[in-house]
Amino acid sequence: MARAITTTAVGIVGGGPAGLMLSHLLHVAGIESVVVDNRLRSEIEHTHRAGILEHDSVRLLVESGVSDRVLREGREHEGVILRFGGASHRIDFQALAGASTWLYPQTDVFIDLADARARDGGDVRFGVSDTDVVDVTSHRPGILFTDASGAEQEIRCEILVGADGSNSMTRRHIAGQRQYYREYPYAWFGILCEAPPSARELIYTRSERGFALISQRTDGIQRMYFECSPTESVDDWPEDRIWAELQARLAGPDGFSLSEGPIFEKTVLPFRSFVCEPMRHGNLVLAGDAAHTVPPTGAKGLNLALADVAVLADILEQVLVKRDHSALDQYTDRALSRVWKAQHFSYWMTTMLHRGENITEFDLRRQLGELESVVNSEAGSAYLAHGYTGWPSGQ
Amino acid sequence: MARAITTTAVGIVGGGPAGLMLSHLLHVAGIESVVVDNRLRSEIEHTHRAGILEHDSVRLLVESGVSDRVLREGREHEGVILRFGGASHRIDFQALAGASTWLYPQTDVFIDLADARARDGGDVRFGVSDTDVVDVTSHRPGILFTDASGAEQEIRCEILVGADGSNSMTRRHIAGQRQYYREYPYAWFGILCEAPPSARELIYTRSERGFALISQRTDGIQRMYFECSPTESVDDWPEDRIWAELQARLAGPDGFSLSEGPIFEKTVLPFRSFVCEPMRHGNLVLAGDAAHTVPPTGAKGLNLALADVAVLADILEQVLVKRDHSALDQYTDRALSRVWKAQHFSYWMTTMLHRGENITEFDLRRQLGELESVVNSEAGSAYLAHGYTGWPSGQ
Repeated sequence: MARAITTTAVGIVGGGPAGLMLSHLLHVAGIESVVVDNRLRSEIEHTHRAGILEHDSVRLLVESGVSDRVLREGREHEGVILRFGGASHRIDFQALAGASTWLYPQTDVFIDLADARARDGGDVRFGVSDTDVVDVTSHRPGILFTDASGAEQEIRCEILVGADGSNSMTRRHIAGQRQYYREYPYAWFGILCEAPPSARELIYTRSERGFALISQRTDGIQRMYFECSPTESVDDWPEDRIWAELQARLAGPDGFSLSEGPIFEKTVLPFRSFVCEPMRHGNLVLAGDAAHTVPPTGAKGLNLALADVAVLADILEQVLVKRDHSALDQYTDRALSRVWKAQHFSYWMTTMLHRGENITEFDLRRQLGELESVVNSEAGSAYLAHGYTGWPSGQ
Repeated sequence: MARAITTTAVGIVGGGPAGLMLSHLLHVAGIESVVVDNRLRSEIEHTHRAGILEHDSVRLLVESGVSDRVLREGREHEGVILRFGGASHRIDFQALAGASTWLYPQTDVFIDLADARARDGGDVRFGVSDTDVVDVTSHRPGILFTDASGAEQEIRCEILVGADGSNSMTRRHIAGQRQYYREYPYAWFGILCEAPPSARELIYTRSERGFALISQRTDGIQRMYFECSPTESVDDWPEDRIWAELQARLAGPDGFSLSEGPIFEKTVLPFRSFVCEPMRHGNLVLAGDAAHTVPPTGAKGLNLALADVAVLADILEQVLVKRDHSALDQYTDRALSRVWKAQHFSYWMTTMLHRGENITEFDLRRQLGELESVVNSEAGSAYLAHGYTGWPSGQ
């Protein structure tokens, strides 16, 4: 049976937030695209991920017309708490950087984007298989796949986008790539529990026992994490052990109280930094996790993916509408400038707050010296606030 | 022959800047002291050391009446240059932190202090030997030594101060001490040369070949450093090799030009961070390098020593004039709060700019991401400016 061939301007592999946001932004610019993803829509909807959006990510969702649900159902965080030495210190984002972040799960970003693409008649094909890309350096690169009904399909386009996540298949087609890695000697043990919120904003805690993060989800469901070994098994952690550990890390003379409740999800999140350079080969470009991953501290992953596609949509408009193909040459540099800042920011937040197994007594005290410098000086607090709420677009 | 016994309020071991500044500040407060040092005054005058004073260090010298020579002969630096990617980026201290630093060699600080002590009739005994301290937990601790003429001497005092540098003898008397270390995988190769200045302010350079620092001394003499291995030998570095290395590290498309000239001093400076805690045992207190050393990046060593003795003079006035002996209990915490900030600042400036032999390609690019974050945001630049020019007194 011959493959059915679809022709479009931009073929996008990956229907997560990066791929769908790009498809939406291209639609707004009058550019056609087709998105394919191996997963079913329902699978992606049930993948729980980080949930902090930078203010520019929120603006992108709202101002490009995806949805304003984030403004209605998300929770604006005008600051964040750094907790160490048993005391809490608030970093006031609004006062220091004139910006907020928003607690809004990645799942909801995905749903808003998938709904917007459906609403606008976008061509998004979930549940495909055997996906491959071909002829990436030609003028008609293609995506080959089997659709959800078992039919062989082929998409031919001018520009091919790999937005297929950290285990990217498309990345293998970036010839001459250099890969940059950093492994971290820890992981996060994450839980979801039924409990009331213990705080209005996130609490990043540095304790001698290791890092902990108190986040939220809804009025009745909370998200919490604590630093653990990368080889930790969730089976070794019954509820009472988890609560004892979290309480110990949050404890302090100020009597901070962490509300407990039944835990219904336990996961270990690995820590890894990765960057692929360049992010383009021929007419194939990468976006989001396909090109770079960051450790979770500082919540940059989803925001970087959205920043990538904002830059990429602008460049593809120059390539496909203004017919300036050379605009594609700018993509790697424009995207990586922000990526390396975010890699550093994530590294900084991580190393300032985690201990690992082999940290020296010197560095434990140096961490406290650094945290004092950050919370006790307006400049230090502002530096963190600007990094956390996000750098200006295109930077 | 019996020891000659001198009685005083404060006995100070070490006649470098920390010991002499303390003796001067005590004199201003009407408190007697005696200073002993194993070195001759001429030896200390010929020890070349760092030369950047924070604004509070300058204020301390001038306002306490040591000398205003720093204002006349020192050079005010209203900023500093960070150079990377072959371009220079100025951090404007005055605009960002409302403060300057001053280029004024440690030798001159010492001369001013020694002259002030002589002018005010201070009892400072250089060139002693066999120095030891005794009875540090008693009400009459003592210093035993042989004076420059060979006579055995004994000083009895209420408070004993160890300001005897990084190889401190007095530190051994701090019972129950914890020592915190960090070793760095690099050193600085330092030169003095006869050449005109290449810049008005210091240039901290991060290059793929390693760090370099272009400093100044006078209109005709310059001080420069470049990162090297801790095991580097000066004998392996003839003049032309040194200049080729410095030029390569400073090179860039902006055509920056480094002026060369005959090199008349070559040294390798080791890198090491050290803190002794507590800084007091009984009636013995440590100040300056005796209690802590920092790597040279960021020029905190001398400034920390002066900050220690400013705190200590205040405390000793409470102990000896207001007869509140419990004030001594505050010393370690008050001094170490600044010390750990400075340890972190020195670590930060070091790791942001040096490469070492085993740095990964990931971290080389992360360094650039961090440097971009620092120079391209007012908050990042201000954070560096505040740390470099010095935190407020007592903090």
